[in-house]
Amino acid sequence: MTSRTPLRSLSPDELASFRAAQQEAYAALRARGLTLDLTRGKPASDQLDLSDRLLDLPTGTTDRNGADVRNYGGLEGLTELREIFAELLEVETAQLICGGNSSLTMMHQALTYLLLWGGPGSERAWKDEPVVKFVCPVPGYDRHFSMLADFGIEMLSVPMNADGPDVDAVAALVADDPAVKGMWVVPTYANPTGSVVSPEVAQALMSMPTAAPDFRVFWDNAYALHHLTDDEAHSADALGLAAAAGNPDRPVMFASTSKITWAGAGVAVMATSEANKAWFLQHLSMASIGPDKVNHLRHVELFGDADGVREHMRRHRALIAPKFAAVDAALTEGLEGLEIAEWTRPTGGYFVNLDVLDGTATRVVQLAKEAGIALTPAGASYPHGQDPRDRNIRLAPTFPPLDQVETAMAGVATCVALAAAEALTG
Amino acid sequence: MTSRTPLRSLSPDELASFRAAQQEAYAALRARGLTLDLTRGKPASDQLDLSDRLLDLPTGTTDRNGADVRNYGGLEGLTELREIFAELLEVETAQLICGGNSSLTMMHQALTYLLLWGGPGSERAWKDEPVVKFVCPVPGYDRHFSMLADFGIEMLSVPMNADGPDVDAVAALVADDPAVKGMWVVPTYANPTGSVVSPEVAQALMSMPTAAPDFRVFWDNAYALHHLTDDEAHSADALGLAAAAGNPDRPVMFASTSKITWAGAGVAVMATSEANKAWFLQHLSMASIGPDKVNHLRHVELFGDADGVREHMRRHRALIAPKFAAVDAALTEGLEGLEIAEWTRPTGGYFVNLDVLDGTATRVVQLAKEAGIALTPAGASYPHGQDPRDRNIRLAPTFPPLDQVETAMAGVATCVALAAAEALTG
Repeated sequence: MTSRTPLRSLSPDELASFRAAQQEAYAALRARGLTLDLTRGKPASDQLDLSDRLLDLPTGTTDRNGADVRNYGGLEGLTELREIFAELLEVETAQLICGGNSSLTMMHQALTYLLLWGGPGSERAWKDEPVVKFVCPVPGYDRHFSMLADFGIEMLSVPMNADGPDVDAVAALVADDPAVKGMWVVPTYANPTGSVVSPEVAQALMSMPTAAPDFRVFWDNAYALHHLTDDEAHSADALGLAAAAGNPDRPVMFASTSKITWAGAGVAVMATSEANKAWFLQHLSMASIGPDKVNHLRHVELFGDADGVREHMRRHRALIAPKFAAVDAALTEGLEGLEIAEWTRPTGGYFVNLDVLDGTATRVVQLAKEAGIALTPAGASYPHGQDPRDRNIRLAPTFPPLDQVETAMAGVATCVALAAAEALTG
Repeated sequence: MTSRTPLRSLSPDELASFRAAQQEAYAALRARGLTLDLTRGKPASDQLDLSDRLLDLPTGTTDRNGADVRNYGGLEGLTELREIFAELLEVETAQLICGGNSSLTMMHQALTYLLLWGGPGSERAWKDEPVVKFVCPVPGYDRHFSMLADFGIEMLSVPMNADGPDVDAVAALVADDPAVKGMWVVPTYANPTGSVVSPEVAQALMSMPTAAPDFRVFWDNAYALHHLTDDEAHSADALGLAAAAGNPDRPVMFASTSKITWAGAGVAVMATSEANKAWFLQHLSMASIGPDKVNHLRHVELFGDADGVREHMRRHRALIAPKFAAVDAALTEGLEGLEIAEWTRPTGGYFVNLDVLDGTATRVVQLAKEAGIALTPAGASYPHGQDPRDRNIRLAPTFPPLDQVETAMAGVATCVALAAAEALTG
């Protein structure tokens, strides 16, 4: 990078020269014939290796009450594992259940049950409402939005700020419209912004008046324990705040070990009020005789206790923090001072949020693709994949090896600069 | 048992004497203070032990294409495992997917998707139909019926004969009423009757005209491989017959390893037309990034191939066939010739179907309970738990040790005889 003058301040000649330099850099990048992938928040092989003791576990086949984990039963999951995650998520064990290998599945089940039957506080099944709407902080998690789209639920975007969803915007949407039945929140190290919901924002979300008597906050705490620095975020106490505000059934918390042990073979958890939990288990009992308790015991033996999980997460941090540093270093090296991009330096989670010059995100992703660098589609973090400013790109640096992250991100910086130069000279 | 004269042929004095003898036997039974349980079709510990090599598996962490089974992905399940079950169930691998630990969950998902969205051939989502009805062969599996009840689906009973559902009764129900959207069939060693659907009945079910354009047969082949004798039943080819009849999307087949490996930690499978499969996976992709492929690989390594499964099932047979023999021996010893009970001698599956004197099943279960013998509630095998003749009792002999089955069944015979004597002298 030869210039640190903001791109908009360059003379037409300087801008043309900058564009030519970026075109040259991009041609060189394409010539390398790379095949790199920054699309999904997947753990890398060395992270999965951290849990390879699971291959030899469990050593026993009974839980501490003597029940045979190999057989049917135990819809709530193994108590030993529920206790560990209750401590980690700071909820009561009685509020928490352990399920299968996917918290996404539990979210889908909870929404399905609300649609088919309604839940505690509902006047009717949500399928019998004329319309159902959800508040969606943006940018957010693409799978949250595609699930709602499949259910035919309308999405109302609100800004995701550094301290969580824009509370005033949310409150305005939910206050008078009973069709607004719920919202998504990723409270800790949000996907993709890395935002952490502050206690004040959590308090507002759990206590705000809602026109719907059965308003639900899907509190997807997927990254509660996924710290990248010593500045470890402390998740707000959604269940406690909601209960204190007289809205105990509002939050439904989800988490999993997908990015703790094995992404495909971990354990999902859900925590909510006892009324919600009883409602959920009643319908779940029609679909399941119990989760895979052998896998629950396998995880209990791997971790031992909550501290075992915390220690395990420090090993993940050691492996992936350098990748996040590499993203920041490459973007700083390539783009700092040009005022054509902003990006996050998250202290946890799995993503870097990159905002490029308005109107150029799609072009950046296309340029990167043609250079062999796969990025998440532009707009993926918005409902229906539509980013109104076409500026947002989600970077997922955990899966590739460090040297590939470095190479890919230097290339991404080139694509961002070229797309900006094209836009400003177009 | 002192008399082999049919109970109805006894003189009043003889009957009074018979009743007194049964009361005495029952008093002795109660005095033993038993605690025995014949309620659920659960594998016994020694059956679960047959799969304990799973504790040390898998030895590898990649599938044969080199994909890391520990990570996300692979919504259809591991191809190696799909091939084994496609061979066993005589379907194409392309028609079959492997899921989580429960085929009940896959049935619930398929029904949920039909309700929320409709499926191939549907004119609208089933939730938008004025009413949805299912044909239910009775006696049948209680969880099939409770699932429908929870969904608000009306149940229409038809007789379950020795060769499958009564085809004429089914055909009459489905021919003119488009609200009749589907039916349950347990084609092989049915729960609880042990019936095996004949090729002719299967042909009729797959080819009969239905008023509903999206009629579905939930073909729950849970016991396809669960033989108890050398006379091994061969499951009818539902998918092939349906395709040949021009109704490829009619059957949806389910099975699992719940009663092959571990009841709580096995693998479920589903097989259906390619259109149904694509439809199912499209909605499933909103709820899951993939099943537990580590557990899939664990099962592949345990079995090796389809013959490995067949060999494994012979070891189950060796353990449980004596328990079924004990049920028959105790009922023969206690009740043969009295003409107050009929029971099945199944050649596979997990249940014995006991029909007692009309109007006495509830009393038999109550007498047994008071003597410390837990039986499945009378009527459990009927929609809403209502057996119109109050005569049906499902016996599940696999879980208790053999000596307990012998003790419990001798007790059950006493309860059956006493309840009959009470009814005939009341």
